[in-house]
Amino acid sequence: MTLAALAPQIVDLARQCHARGWMLGTSGNISSVLQRDPLRLAITGSGVHKGALTPGDILEIGRDGKVVGGSGRPSTEASLHLAVAGSRGSGAVLHTHSIWSTIISDGVTGDGLSIEGYEMLKGLAGVATHEHREWLPIVENTQDWAAAAPKVEELLARHPDVHGFLVRRHGLYTWGRDLDEARRHVETLEFLFEVIGRKRGIGWQQ
Amino acid sequence: MTLAALAPQIVDLARQCHARGWMLGTSGNISSVLQRDPLRLAITGSGVHKGALTPGDILEIGRDGKVVGGSGRPSTEASLHLAVAGSRGSGAVLHTHSIWSTIISDGVTGDGLSIEGYEMLKGLAGVATHEHREWLPIVENTQDWAAAAPKVEELLARHPDVHGFLVRRHGLYTWGRDLDEARRHVETLEFLFEVIGRKRGIGWQQ
Amino acid sequence: MTLAALAPQIVDLARQCHARGWMLGTSGNISSVLQRDPLRLAITGSGVHKGALTPGDILEIGRDGKVVGGSGRPSTEASLHLAVAGSRGSGAVLHTHSIWSTIISDGVTGDGLSIEGYEMLKGLAGVATHEHREWLPIVENTQDWAAAAPKVEELLARHPDVHGFLVRRHGLYTWGRDLDEARRHVETLEFLFEVIGRKRGIGWQQ
Amino acid sequence: MTLAALAPQIVDLARQCHARGWMLGTSGNISSVLQRDPLRLAITGSGVHKGALTPGDILEIGRDGKVVGGSGRPSTEASLHLAVAGSRGSGAVLHTHSIWSTIISDGVTGDGLSIEGYEMLKGLAGVATHEHREWLPIVENTQDWAAAAPKVEELLARHPDVHGFLVRRHGLYTWGRDLDEARRHVETLEFLFEVIGRKRGIGWQQ
Repeated sequence: MTLAALAPQIVDLARQCHARGWMLGTSGNISSVLQRDPLRLAITGSGVHKGALTPGDILEIGRDGKVVGGSGRPSTEASLHLAVAGSRGSGAVLHTHSIWSTIISDGVTGDGLSIEGYEMLKGLAGVATHEHREWLPIVENTQDWAAAAPKVEELLARHPDVHGFLVRRHGLYTWGRDLDEARRHVETLEFLFEVIGRKRGIGWQQ
Repeated sequence: MTLAALAPQIVDLARQCHARGWMLGTSGNISSVLQRDPLRLAITGSGVHKGALTPGDILEIGRDGKVVGGSGRPSTEASLHLAVAGSRGSGAVLHTHSIWSTIISDGVTGDGLSIEGYEMLKGLAGVATHEHREWLPIVENTQDWAAAAPKVEELLARHPDVHGFLVRRHGLYTWGRDLDEARRHVETLEFLFEVIGRKRGIGWQQ
Repeated sequence: MTLAALAPQIVDLARQCHARGWMLGTSGNISSVLQRDPLRLAITGSGVHKGALTPGDILEIGRDGKVVGGSGRPSTEASLHLAVAGSRGSGAVLHTHSIWSTIISDGVTGDGLSIEGYEMLKGLAGVATHEHREWLPIVENTQDWAAAAPKVEELLARHPDVHGFLVRRHGLYTWGRDLDEARRHVETLEFLFEVIGRKRGIGWQQ
Repeated sequence: MTLAALAPQIVDLARQCHARGWMLGTSGNISSVLQRDPLRLAITGSGVHKGALTPGDILEIGRDGKVVGGSGRPSTEASLHLAVAGSRGSGAVLHTHSIWSTIISDGVTGDGLSIEGYEMLKGLAGVATHEHREWLPIVENTQDWAAAAPKVEELLARHPDVHGFLVRRHGLYTWGRDLDEARRHVETLEFLFEVIGRKRGIGWQQ
């Protein structure tokens, strides 16, 4: 894949996420693997409004996070994208910063969230039944992802089955073999967060 | 009706449902009767994103669920569509997988949900007054619809007046004489689920 | 105004209301005065989907509710539109059937709802300050509006200052000197219903 | 900048805000600085529907609030826009009148709202960490902004770090160096109001 081919797909997906309120302000970011060896990512630039993104706002970065194509600064969370793409072998990483992922990651105490018994879980790759129990780690928020990224890689290595993780009061990271699968995972998990949050609001616990 | 004529209508309806958040990820599915004898359905393929559906993603299947036109795999829930179309004589079946149908089907205990006294009930075929009491069976979720479909047919035979049913933690099935009527039933029932859920959230019981 | 000139405006407004979820299924209706003496209304036909409305679905009716232009059946609630247009001298009447107007008209006991102290009240014609107290009558629902319409006219005569009324578990009627003002009243009142409902949901009473 | 260049940008932003339900009815307004010395603002006219705004509805006003370009009446809140643009040196001011800013400004007692610990706070200019504590003054509503504007200027002078303020039961004022930054601040703050309101609704306090 070339940056020129991927950039319009990333832009289109960012606009969809912005329209649903999952990437308001300049929040949220998207990356997709351009090549594996050495690793190269196409990634949304830092501080860009996701509803007004253009292909020129998508950068190419190397494994060390340095820009090798396009102009601008990559997201400060690029190291998280690189950690996921490197350790998971995924083709695309999505970070949404939605109302419900913010609330759920805040209100749930402990180091993770378990979701069980919903048909929607089958939207996650490899999950064939609603009887599945999905566990999402919750990572504490930081402003130093360069330092924290290795710990996230370690966490992902210890839990090879997870499809995403939450960052406390910050949102969701999920991924897939390509942008389409990553989008499916976003829609699946955001749906489940909203169900869980709203159920609690009407006094029905999970 | 030919597959070529129905497919664009199904695609258009799927996009509308996706936009409202009723068919996120690859959830939800739609079928419409192509011919009655022997029964042939146009139906959305399995694992396709409903916001990016194209007419080529719509298949033609026979009464036994085998694909006889188009390419791809039909939904694993095709047997439910066939059961409804066969036993109800309806022209179209819609399955939405919305936030509120998931919540309501989960929180309501017992084998069904009664809704009574709302003007919106008149959106259901044959209902002429808000004083109507509509009952929706709640069917337990399963991954073996081929085995469960006959029980659903039996249930529908015992309750000839129902306009839809809920699958626990999974969503709504409803139908109509054509796609337009099925859409009207979806909008009517989804509205009522949201009213009931939100009322409970503010401490007003039905 | 001619039916040909008004019909596209009504269609456009109906689509906006459908998009916001205020006219789902075939619910909601819109009328606009074509001439005053004798009274002639352009009005949405009965049982038409508001998201797929076309100018051909708009009818012309006389003071007695009979169709004098266009083809189809007028809404069974046409007598309410005629009552409002006749007694208020308004140029347009809108009936929305939203989630929040349904919930509020259901949960509030007594014969009306008072709203006071919100800046948004200034969206109502003639209201110049947030210190205004608006009162909306709540009318019991019926399927015989021909019989009930005179009572609504009486109610409106007794309360010349009201800008709309609620029908229990059914929705909102409001009006304005033209379609633009009626739309402003709908947006204003629907906003206030949602604020009141959501405040109650988080334990903040009005 | 000329009025002709800015007007279409203001119109576009107003439509976006109307679509999200932040400027229903004729509520909300937007201004942008045309020149600094003497101060000239492009500002939305009074009583105009934000979903149907056209460039002709945008006026040019001077420091005294008088119209010097375009036709129509400026918003009665023009003096607030002038106070902010004058004292803050900002290039654009946005006032949204959303459900959540109305609710939060109403339910929170005292003279302001503190928000702390959310990643989304980084959407505010100059905020580099989620550990930031943002304080938004809550100003009592009035119909005499000409009289109240100097007090708001005083308040802003005493609190040079604030990025916006709430008007009780009325909504949010925020600003930025240009329309893009002001929009980013609106999306950031409206997101946070919704998070805080919904968390309270499910029993999770901030």
